[in-house]
Amino acid sequence: MKENIDMDRLSKQLEFVLEMDKLKYIKRQTYVADASRKEDDAEHSWHLALMAMLLSEYANEEINVLHVIKMVLIHDTVEIDAGDTYAYDEAGNETKRAREEKAADRIFNLLPKDQAKEMRDIWEEFEAGITPEARFANALDKVQPIMLNDITGGKAWREHDVAASQVTKRNENTHLGSEVLWEHVNQLIRKNTDQGNLRDE
Amino acid sequence: MKENIDMDRLSKQLEFVLEMDKLKYIKRQTYVADASRKEDDAEHSWHLALMAMLLSEYANEEINVLHVIKMVLIHDTVEIDAGDTYAYDEAGNETKRAREEKAADRIFNLLPKDQAKEMRDIWEEFEAGITPEARFANALDKVQPIMLNDITGGKAWREHDVAASQVTKRNENTHLGSEVLWEHVNQLIRKNTDQGNLRDE
Repeated sequence: MKENIDMDRLSKQLEFVLEMDKLKYIKRQTYVADASRKEDDAEHSWHLALMAMLLSEYANEEINVLHVIKMVLIHDTVEIDAGDTYAYDEAGNETKRAREEKAADRIFNLLPKDQAKEMRDIWEEFEAGITPEARFANALDKVQPIMLNDITGGKAWREHDVAASQVTKRNENTHLGSEVLWEHVNQLIRKNTDQGNLRDE
Repeated sequence: MKENIDMDRLSKQLEFVLEMDKLKYIKRQTYVADASRKEDDAEHSWHLALMAMLLSEYANEEINVLHVIKMVLIHDTVEIDAGDTYAYDEAGNETKRAREEKAADRIFNLLPKDQAKEMRDIWEEFEAGITPEARFANALDKVQPIMLNDITGGKAWREHDVAASQVTKRNENTHLGSEVLWEHVNQLIRKNTDQGNLRDE
């Protein structure tokens, strides 16, 4: 047994781990690949981490894969309090940042100070989307729902009557993270527009 | 755009990423923290990756955190074909290894050869449980369901009439990965035995 374990520190860490379980209850708008139900934030975050591990060769710039994975594992943390704001919900997106900052203040501070700061910094880095790691993480976060929409015949897009131009606009920075993945999803957007899964306007 | 992208390679990687979506449909026996439903393999794997990131200081030995995270992200891959075998299902566990090897052969080989080998090696390392990373990953895999059982009043344990001795036996190697986490779950096992959530025999 290691000596001098700080039990207060451990207890804060375990409390955060259990609090994060709530990401399993936050439903996204995107369907899982067999279209049987919508996916949740925990599943989505796992999927992005898997993609970060397997597709890092397609990042435009040198990236630290561990840092990208940390980012995607916690990028939706604030949705525990702020909820999932659908990408194409304009009213919801106006209040999103304020709701999410308040959530970040509460949730990350469950952790010991050093880890609270590390996680908050990682989240802010993801949100700012400027570092190579954040650019790639943001690209993955945009690419994954397009892949799931494509394989489900655009189920979520159809339900929300989404236009191709909205998906393209939402992906305006995807090429900054990965030209290769952007080229792939751009093809998927065109294909789904031709198929009528995305509104052509 | 990067030159000379191997489209066959990319297409294999993306096929694997979509195949792995099926881990979202594999239900485990453990309930999520609010006890409303059982968790699935994707959620569980995400939760372990989060724990690897936040609790690595409690590993007994020096570990490479990225390697542990890769391991937990894919440790349940084979369950896509082989299904989840409940820890305390003796008959199921007798045929488990053969079913899982067949699944590994099929699923990892969807990837390009180099990544198929890397993922297979990581999975075999996890299964063997001998390296410092595998010991810690295995400890997390045992600790997480105990935390969820504890917070749900032993819901899954009660449903399966699990004995404290079975949980202790299943955790016989947890201390090899982390003495600190073993001490914590050992306390939880005792508490839940006292509370009648685990059968005392």
